[in-house]
This record gives sequence, structure tokens and C-alpha cells, in this order.
Amino acid sequence: MSAAPRSRAQRRGDTEHRLAHDIDVWVASASADGAPYLVPLSFDWDGEALLVATPADSPTGRNLAATRAARVGLGHTRDVSMIEGEVEVLEIGALPRERGERFAARTGFDPRALAAPYRWFRISPRRIQAWREVNELPDRELMGGGRWLV
Amino acid sequence: MSAAPRSRAQRRGDTEHRLAHDIDVWVASASADGAPYLVPLSFDWDGEALLVATPADSPTGRNLAATRAARVGLGHTRDVSMIEGEVEVLEIGALPRERGERFAARTGFDPRALAAPYRWFRISPRRIQAWREVNELPDRELMGGGRWLV
Repeated sequence: MSAAPRSRAQRRGDTEHRLAHDIDVWVASASADGAPYLVPLSFDWDGEALLVATPADSPTGRNLAATRAARVGLGHTRDVSMIEGEVEVLEIGALPRERGERFAARTGFDPRALAAPYRWFRISPRRIQAWREVNELPDRELMGGGRWLV
Repeated sequence: MSAAPRSRAQRRGDTEHRLAHDIDVWVASASADGAPYLVPLSFDWDGEALLVATPADSPTGRNLAATRAARVGLGHTRDVSMIEGEVEVLEIGALPRERGERFAARTGFDPRALAAPYRWFRISPRRIQAWREVNELPDRELMGGGRWLV
């Protein structure tokens, strides 16, 4: 039996907590001609965008650079925040040093140290939804057009 | 510190165990013009394909019907099986009754009972990869062209 549905304000708080403290997200992307891709990636959150790193020539790296669009799953299948975002692409040396240090400290992974050519991808949320079970499908919209609705 | 990497045979066994026993997967799809989508869905496994159900007019329902391609995440971000599959679309009444009963019993969700027009989507794996941490990225290919490689 499901718990009572959370308020939208509570869901925003829970989502912000995950953005500040979780380490991994699911990143869905697509090629320009409609082939879906999905991988788990580590991320950092700077208060405005999710920062991830992946090889420039990986499917995710190519898709994000081509379409500048991602849909991100944060949390678990029964306690999820879904984030649709616009993607900014940064060469690996273009990020301020302290932001790279912060990413490496949070995730335990430093893409600046690798031989393979990685890129940074900053995903700025435009739409956020959050729900746990079916009884939370109403009121799941928390952000639209890049603005919190609650 | 990571555990020693699993053999490919062990990863196949772990993947088959999840297919037989897990309830939820992450389903990534894309529109024909390259907009990614992602949702968690409940599934059943009949030994050959994953069966999911979602509204015909939802983004996932429209994408899967248009492109017939899905990439599915099974498990967790640090213990994942990634499945690329071909999608068969079935109207809600077209599935044999016992298969619908089995889906409802496993997932606790019966899309046949809903007023909204749902469809079934059978996702037949063509490629499967499985890894936990970075040390398992080698040897992650378990199925290609619809055939087990191990």
C-alpha cells in the first residue's frame, strides 16, 4: 500500500536534496535521427545545472553535442525525479579548475586525468517532474520552462 | 575499492536473474527527430522479450510505435544491465489472456482494466551489456545481433 502522496513543495525539497547529495543519474539522449541511448553517469550539481563527463566520441557524447537535449532520471524507479534539460558542451580544459576539483571529489572520478578525450556536459533543467507511485502521478510537474512551479 | 570484475558468464547469469525477478526497468526512447525520453516502467519477461505497457498517446508510447527501438536500463547505476531491443506493438486486447494475467500478477498493475487506451510493447533484446564499476567496462558486451556472446 502506498504512502499518502507528497505535496509538490515536499517533492521539490526531495529533488533538491538528491541534486545536492546523490552521485549517479541515468542520462537518456538521442541521435538526431531518433536512436535512443541511456547510460548511468556520475554528476555534480552547482545550483543551476548538472555537470557530467563522458567521452566525446561515445554515443552519449555525440548525441548531447548534436541535439543539446537530455532527459535525466534521478533516484530510483519508485522514487524518481525526471529532469529535461538543455545541454552546454565544454571541452575538458574549459571548465574552471575548482569546478573540476569539486566534480572529482564528489564522484571519485576525474575525467581531466584520462588519456581518452572526454568532454563536460552541463545540463540545465527546463522541466522537472517527481513521483513515487501511481498516486503521485497527479501534481508531478515541479518545473516548467526552466522555472519552479512550486 | 571495487570487487574483482565478474566473468561474462556470471554477468549473463546475473542479468537473466534480474530479467526473471526484477519488477521495474528504465525505458529510454526517442522521437523520430531526436528528442530523448525516459521513464521507469514495470515489466514482465517471457524468456524472449520484456513486456511493458504504457498509454498509446504518451511520449514513450508514441516513440516506441514510431521508431520500434528502445534502450532499457535494468538494475542500479552501479550494477546495470543495458538492453537494446526491437519493439513490437500490440493493442491491449491482442495479448493472450494468460500473458496479461502474468503481467498483472508480477507487477501489481493491470493495464487491461484502465479507461485510458494503453498498448503493450514487447522489447526483444538485440544487444546486452552489463557492468558494475569502471573495472567491469571491459568484457561488458554479453549479446550482439540478438545472440548471446557467452
